[in-house]
Amino acid sequence: MADDALFEFLHMEIVAHVYKEQATREDIDKERVTCVSTLEAMGFRVGQGLIERFTKDCPTFKDDLDVMKFLCKDFWSTVFKKQIDNLRTNHQGTYVLQDNKFALLTQFSSGKQYLEEAPKYLAFSCGLIRGALSNLGLESVVTAEVSLMPSCKFQVVIQKL
Amino acid sequence: MADDALFEFLHMEIVAHVYKEQATREDIDKERVTCVSTLEAMGFRVGQGLIERFTKDCPTFKDDLDVMKFLCKDFWSTVFKKQIDNLRTNHQGTYVLQDNKFALLTQFSSGKQYLEEAPKYLAFSCGLIRGALSNLGLESVVTAEVSLMPSCKFQVVIQKL
Repeated sequence: MADDALFEFLHMEIVAHVYKEQATREDIDKERVTCVSTLEAMGFRVGQGLIERFTKDCPTFKDDLDVMKFLCKDFWSTVFKKQIDNLRTNHQGTYVLQDNKFALLTQFSSGKQYLEEAPKYLAFSCGLIRGALSNLGLESVVTAEVSLMPSCKFQVVIQKL
Repeated sequence: MADDALFEFLHMEIVAHVYKEQATREDIDKERVTCVSTLEAMGFRVGQGLIERFTKDCPTFKDDLDVMKFLCKDFWSTVFKKQIDNLRTNHQGTYVLQDNKFALLTQFSSGKQYLEEAPKYLAFSCGLIRGALSNLGLESVVTAEVSLMPSCKFQVVIQKL
């Protein structure tokens, strides 16, 4: 419990810092885009680094679905202390990962009250997924959607080369 | 192992981000002070948050030394995955915490080559200690010193009110 607290607190600090820093120098609209991409980029690099360690002793994956399953179980458990609750796919490169109690949203009160704050707290994790997949040879576009806190859906669209 | 990697990678990203961001707008000298204090302040808040969780079910501490021991053992183990190797005190409010293999310095090659980079990577942790102590009722000044990587000494001077 104290372990995930470290990550959660650190993550909150980063989000707060990135937004505060931008607020001092840019206009509002531009700010929003930049902050999200800054956080996404940080997540990307962390995801790349982590997956390298995680998969060091792993057998190779047999297909994309296999990679996604690993991400939903092992990777997610280590980072967010629980597995993804539901993984769906259209078998054409689109995956939806649903976490019913996403760690980085649990500090908020449940419901719809802080819904517009949510994207701030999801950008890093989108990058994390994209970075992890990238290092496993899958380029992707990752977006997140919250309709009721603290549940969250990540949509991963694999880019065919 | 993958757990501490998350913290280490995230910490590296923060340091890199804070320095990069400042480099784009300030002159060099001012930059340095600001970056260190930004990181220290982030550490302070994370330290405050963490200690609150850690000590929730703890008995009260009988004196300052007792607090420091808790910090060196339980707190350090959770955050940095090992205990402080050596704790010394002059019994007048000054404590020296020595970590012979400080987690946030292990990515560097050992020795003196990157010594001048070290302060960047210690500011957050100084804040972490100061924040934890502050929440336990002890105001302090915390500084860090590296003479040979990856070993590190933190000096804590308790401020008597």
